[in-house]
Amino acid sequence: MSNVLAIGVTETQTKLHLLTIPRRAVGPNDVDIKIEYCGMCHSDLHHCRQEWGETKKPSVPGHEIVGTVTQVGAKVSKFAVGQTVGVGCFVDSCRECKECGDDLIQYCAKGVTGTYGAPVKDGTGHTHGGYSQAIVVDENYVLSIPSNLDQAAAAPLLCAGITVWSPMKHYGVKAGSKIAVLGLGGLGHMGDENKKPEALALGAESLLVTSDKEAFKRASRSFDFVIDTVSDDHDLASYLSLLGTDGTYILVGGSPKPFALPAFSLIPKRIKIGGSLVGGIKETQEMLDFCGANNIVSEIELVKAEYAEKAWDRMQKSDVKFRFVIDVGRSLNKDTQVKL
Amino acid sequence: MSNVLAIGVTETQTKLHLLTIPRRAVGPNDVDIKIEYCGMCHSDLHHCRQEWGETKKPSVPGHEIVGTVTQVGAKVSKFAVGQTVGVGCFVDSCRECKECGDDLIQYCAKGVTGTYGAPVKDGTGHTHGGYSQAIVVDENYVLSIPSNLDQAAAAPLLCAGITVWSPMKHYGVKAGSKIAVLGLGGLGHMGDENKKPEALALGAESLLVTSDKEAFKRASRSFDFVIDTVSDDHDLASYLSLLGTDGTYILVGGSPKPFALPAFSLIPKRIKIGGSLVGGIKETQEMLDFCGANNIVSEIELVKAEYAEKAWDRMQKSDVKFRFVIDVGRSLNKDTQVKL
Repeated sequence: MSNVLAIGVTETQTKLHLLTIPRRAVGPNDVDIKIEYCGMCHSDLHHCRQEWGETKKPSVPGHEIVGTVTQVGAKVSKFAVGQTVGVGCFVDSCRECKECGDDLIQYCAKGVTGTYGAPVKDGTGHTHGGYSQAIVVDENYVLSIPSNLDQAAAAPLLCAGITVWSPMKHYGVKAGSKIAVLGLGGLGHMGDENKKPEALALGAESLLVTSDKEAFKRASRSFDFVIDTVSDDHDLASYLSLLGTDGTYILVGGSPKPFALPAFSLIPKRIKIGGSLVGGIKETQEMLDFCGANNIVSEIELVKAEYAEKAWDRMQKSDVKFRFVIDVGRSLNKDTQVKL
Repeated sequence: MSNVLAIGVTETQTKLHLLTIPRRAVGPNDVDIKIEYCGMCHSDLHHCRQEWGETKKPSVPGHEIVGTVTQVGAKVSKFAVGQTVGVGCFVDSCRECKECGDDLIQYCAKGVTGTYGAPVKDGTGHTHGGYSQAIVVDENYVLSIPSNLDQAAAAPLLCAGITVWSPMKHYGVKAGSKIAVLGLGGLGHMGDENKKPEALALGAESLLVTSDKEAFKRASRSFDFVIDTVSDDHDLASYLSLLGTDGTYILVGGSPKPFALPAFSLIPKRIKIGGSLVGGIKETQEMLDFCGANNIVSEIELVKAEYAEKAWDRMQKSDVKFRFVIDVGRSLNKDTQVKL
């Protein structure tokens, strides 16, 4: 076991601050990773600010981890010291259920072990995430990061990227499908035209500003898919009206408040609403390899560890284009003082 | 044009009573049908009691119609005088949109013409349903009833039957699928053990009484499909918990009040909720032919026209096993006095 520096929250200190957490000794199947970068997912904020229920303390979030292998266990075959690797939203699962066998690890029937805040199997506590200097993970839950990708900008692929990739494959998005993406990186951006240039630069054909009710009516029935990435409350029925017959509404944002769902927003057009949760390890590796082959990464704003709490405040105000990534390797150390 | 007797509601008389309605002259593509039986769908009640919004008056409901062809237009090729035919939930559509071309008439982009309460294309008023002596319908919206089936017991196949058949095919129910059917004919039956013998007789492996919270927990994750036929308010999240990973919740009951849908009832198991509305003409004919080949009809309680309002009262109290059918041919006439 070793201790590493991290930033997180505790029972008494509800703002991010420097603390020390233990990491287990490297077992035969483990990979020890020096963390270079960690993306800041909205889930981190929901979790630490108790918006999804009470969480275990201390809580060190972060599940978009990119780093360098510093040590491998005797039985590790997939990774070597010096390699650039990633860790996403989970670090273990039961490995016995049908879901685990089908590489649907994220839906493990016994409950997947999340990268932070989840009970550790041996009963020694709960997991801690990537807002920390290092992490020890079983090699079966580690990803290989293609060497041509920018490491910092690749980090968000491990949660944000796979969260959208997996349902697009599962629910049958194909060439020619008309897709509306609801949410463009963060909360409260709806009714916000500020991101129009970026939306178009990212390849969108148009931006629908949802505070414009007339534009909404004009777009009625015009999409095959809506991908809803918004993690705050919003009017589901309005967005369902954008879909045509047999349209699919893909729900990946975890709004804490239940939606109001009228039966008649689904029945008259045979619409379906489908949830999706990140992706399996094999599927995530496929996505990373695809991104490597096509040189795809996220648009990010790189910040120092000391800026993390302020970054969360900006996320809540939707003042980020599009993902904060913490430069852990070069800014998380004994001198880190998180700004409030 | 001709006048026929019917039972319905008007602006001033909100209970069912005898009235006279016009039927159009038989056009070249039309079939004139003497109505023998009409099933009583919960939609009839919702409609006439204004539970789905204000309706046009007079309102004559009924869309599970079985009768005998008495006259055919010059161009009619599919039906002959004397034949037993059926009319379901719609009697016309635009015939030009993609949906109409794909035999998804019920999802017609310009709006299907419902069998009752829908505007007639020529602007002469609105449609009237099967609680009446006769109906004139374009042959393309008429079904053939297999001659071996009991006519009265076949009537509910035209709405209730196809409403369940169509989504089972569309959403991929197959041999071996584990299905929970929510609702067993009418409202308020949930938490009602009275129907257990009937449920088992109909082929169910077990009956889950949903007021028993422990039974509910035991059944968690145990189904591939839930077919929700309940047209009154209920707790969607509880029923979603019955589904396993990649489960499908099929919504066909038209609860007037929006459901509360927590995002986390879908995301962690990649569950989808899909609506479905009756079925197309080709599909309905396939279902009827299947029922003919396998001698499948509904369980019904045959009632006289004078009993219709009382039947609705019993439907609202869930006091029916399983479908009321009005014996129109032998009980709807100038002497009919609907009992209140």
